[in-house]
Amino acid sequence: MDITRQIADHVVSSRMQMVPADVRHEACRALLNYVGCAIGGAHEDAVEIALRALNPYSGNRTSVILGRRDRVDPITASLINGIAAHVHDFDDTTPHNLSHTTCPVASAIISHASQQAVDGSEFLHAFLLGFEAASQIANAIVPGHYEAGWHITSTVGAIGAAVAVGRLRALTAEKMTNAIGIAATQAAGLRVVFGSMAKGFNPGRAAQNGYVAAVLADAGFTGGNDPLGGPRGFLEVLASTRDAGAIAERPPTEFELRHNAYKPFPCGLVMHAAIDACIQLHLEARIDPDEIRSVRLRVAPIVLDLCNKRVIHSGLEGRFSIYHAAAVGLVRGKAGLAEFTDQAVNESRIRAVRERVTVEPDADISHDAATVEITRLDGCSLSKSVAHAIGSLQRPLSDRALEQKFRDQAEPRLGGQRAGALLDLCWALERAGNAGQIAELAAPA
Amino acid sequence: MDITRQIADHVVSSRMQMVPADVRHEACRALLNYVGCAIGGAHEDAVEIALRALNPYSGNRTSVILGRRDRVDPITASLINGIAAHVHDFDDTTPHNLSHTTCPVASAIISHASQQAVDGSEFLHAFLLGFEAASQIANAIVPGHYEAGWHITSTVGAIGAAVAVGRLRALTAEKMTNAIGIAATQAAGLRVVFGSMAKGFNPGRAAQNGYVAAVLADAGFTGGNDPLGGPRGFLEVLASTRDAGAIAERPPTEFELRHNAYKPFPCGLVMHAAIDACIQLHLEARIDPDEIRSVRLRVAPIVLDLCNKRVIHSGLEGRFSIYHAAAVGLVRGKAGLAEFTDQAVNESRIRAVRERVTVEPDADISHDAATVEITRLDGCSLSKSVAHAIGSLQRPLSDRALEQKFRDQAEPRLGGQRAGALLDLCWALERAGNAGQIAELAAPA
Repeated sequence: MDITRQIADHVVSSRMQMVPADVRHEACRALLNYVGCAIGGAHEDAVEIALRALNPYSGNRTSVILGRRDRVDPITASLINGIAAHVHDFDDTTPHNLSHTTCPVASAIISHASQQAVDGSEFLHAFLLGFEAASQIANAIVPGHYEAGWHITSTVGAIGAAVAVGRLRALTAEKMTNAIGIAATQAAGLRVVFGSMAKGFNPGRAAQNGYVAAVLADAGFTGGNDPLGGPRGFLEVLASTRDAGAIAERPPTEFELRHNAYKPFPCGLVMHAAIDACIQLHLEARIDPDEIRSVRLRVAPIVLDLCNKRVIHSGLEGRFSIYHAAAVGLVRGKAGLAEFTDQAVNESRIRAVRERVTVEPDADISHDAATVEITRLDGCSLSKSVAHAIGSLQRPLSDRALEQKFRDQAEPRLGGQRAGALLDLCWALERAGNAGQIAELAAPA
Repeated sequence: MDITRQIADHVVSSRMQMVPADVRHEACRALLNYVGCAIGGAHEDAVEIALRALNPYSGNRTSVILGRRDRVDPITASLINGIAAHVHDFDDTTPHNLSHTTCPVASAIISHASQQAVDGSEFLHAFLLGFEAASQIANAIVPGHYEAGWHITSTVGAIGAAVAVGRLRALTAEKMTNAIGIAATQAAGLRVVFGSMAKGFNPGRAAQNGYVAAVLADAGFTGGNDPLGGPRGFLEVLASTRDAGAIAERPPTEFELRHNAYKPFPCGLVMHAAIDACIQLHLEARIDPDEIRSVRLRVAPIVLDLCNKRVIHSGLEGRFSIYHAAAVGLVRGKAGLAEFTDQAVNESRIRAVRERVTVEPDADISHDAATVEITRLDGCSLSKSVAHAIGSLQRPLSDRALEQKFRDQAEPRLGGQRAGALLDLCWALERAGNAGQIAELAAPA
């Protein structure tokens, strides 16, 4: 059983008619959310610095950086768009494997489509094939891979990006196999860099690695035999737990896009239930922050594993601090982009509440659930439990909520009219003559 | 103990006067050997295809591809030069960790020096700092990392390249730490692709990854806290056996360059002892290949682990076939570039002998030793044992032998005069005003 070739065969032979309508709609939701996040993140420090550093090395400036007027070659654009779309930790997630798969896949193909006309339906199809391939592989290495310290978004993302760009370049099954191999041998990304700019760099580089893999394979570059499932292949080398059967035996009627979640808050997904509970408490009880003596959270153990940053100084660190996340929920009753800035992290009222937060991990709690209990100075206690966080698969963001999230990020850059046109195009992508129009509309006029 | 910062501090504060003369000379040997291999490999398929595929995306064409007239931007050049220098499996190796460390490090800095004047002594110093940093890390993850399936040359090579380019860009210790982190989070390369073009791609991409890491860090991009030694850092995630003490406690007077070996044969290092024995038998006994009934090899188990390709069709596969390697030694009495072409692999006399080779792994034999025993059709047996292969640390190639190896590769491309001038420049690098002259001379007139 050669699972690399199996994936390649499927990707090459898939027809859009085989994809159910609800999955196509979900692909549109994922792309719309992606485009909003990329525009929203386009002026963050990590993006500014990466662009300034790499701009002198750019080739022909054919491809848009979403949300900016700058153009660079499509390989460089894959990286920069990927950093921008992930920098706020606001992009989508498949909760089962904790991968933000859209970011690397979409960053690669939007950069490609920005330089060369691509039919909208073809684009959507390539995206979902890349998303599905990466997700299948991610599911095969859950949970050992991520627990060991790999940034799963970028390791499997490089392969998803190669598949999607490869599909747009109409690779044969043999070349697609090579593209997957060249991507697999570049698979990288460490969680140890979380909290630094390199976190967003990981999926950006994955987009770029996948792009390069597809370009090389297209030209005849080879990439080994069953680089995914073979002896010492990707699965064996990068994952202590693995289940190749999750790939080999998966019915073609299953789609991981159905299990994709969209974040209401721009920070670590596993904190969302606690934030949700804190916001609800804020709205219901109208607590004065100065009256809070202590805050007790009960959460899944992974919350502390991922988001245990207690002493923080930057907004970037705040995205991985359960203490900060709870504090902004309680103090401000919201947790949007403004709550994860350097300013918010250093605001004295938020810091004061943050310092009163204690967290109890509980293995019986799932990572989309949480309980918060606050005790006031007068000794009175209040608590709130959330069984499934807003934005989870059980309480998904509606299309309207996604549109609002999109507008919140895109309108400040593009203005309302252009943002609206871009929104319409994302929804109507399947009937669009050229998906590259997304990139054109996403560049401020 | 923050080993990332420790390495960064050392790299930033090192002075050339601290480097003993024998180590500087060894650095020249490594670079000279590298330049010869890059020129020798510059027209292999893997290089032609990668260049054709990526050329359209190149930025300003400032940097030479050694052995060619083409120029590309320095980041692309790092990749292409890296592929070329490794494609023949003819570059150097530190036997203790099986890493070909010069290739990624030198590919990055020669591409940098090709676009911007760099003092020869600074260049040599940066090279050896990158080589040492990568080697230290490699030694800390021997043997688990490579055994698991990682291409150690590229995983540690990315970090070595970042260090070397970072040094040439005069990064501060803080920025150097970030460069190491950005390189570490890109560390990748799987042995499963050995036998395909992606093998050479791995160190090339490592060169490029390190280059990008240094450029980004220079501009202010951040890369995490102790990405090498920290919890879930590079050492923890990529190696089942690790010894951070090998880095932390290493005296600054030790240099891994003293333990670097240069290959006489363009193929897997662990086959060299068997080839050596077969060539000696050929030269001493003048055996008619048609008279060979069987060939028995006794070798270290790692030989079969790495080079067990029995059915082969291409020269690339032949580089990892102990059967082919023994056959060319016995049939032709040599194992140069001409013995690892598609033509040689498919030559009937060589194939006939190859099919008669059996290999017995013996855990008591080191990987630079081997015994070959042939039985002729007349029943007579002959055998030869080699305790240390030619080119091993115990029987190193002399400066003259390295020069001959260089000329064999460079003269067909550059002509004798230019090749000679380039050779002289490599030896005199420490006194050269501009190391970029290496690249200029390595481009055919």
